[in-house]
Amino acid sequence: MKTKAIFYHAGCPVCVAAEQGLATALDQSQYAVEIVHLGEHKERIREAESLGIHSVPALLLGDQVFHINFGAKLADLH
Amino acid sequence: MKTKAIFYHAGCPVCVAAEQGLATALDQSQYAVEIVHLGEHKERIREAESLGIHSVPALLLGDQVFHINFGAKLADLH
Repeated sequence: MKTKAIFYHAGCPVCVAAEQGLATALDQSQYAVEIVHLGEHKERIREAESLGIHSVPALLLGDQVFHINFGAKLADLH
Repeated sequence: MKTKAIFYHAGCPVCVAAEQGLATALDQSQYAVEIVHLGEHKERIREAESLGIHSVPALLLGDQVFHINFGAKLADLH
């Protein structure tokens, strides 16, 4: 049973770098990685906020949130 | 040939969470992961600074730096 991982981003350069560098570096045998573009899926911004995410790029690993560098505030994506 | 990954931290709670959550989630078949406690190895602070790291926890993957959440400023570790 793999642990859920969700990489939230908004297509910004910092986001793309983190996706290509970090999201692809995760152990795919341990984690089922979903990539969510919040600019294209605004209906999921609320979900991200409820997880405690306040900026992108961010990575949810299990129930832990990691904000990675800084691309954009979630509040600016609405 | 594995890519070099270095996780820099300073033993802070945010650092420990990132180490346990994120550093262990990396694909060990792709990355040779080194963990560096900058509080215990102050001689490596300059190395971290030269990589563009300004806070811990931070993860170097190849030549990319990812600042993860925020634990402490590097400048406060000297």
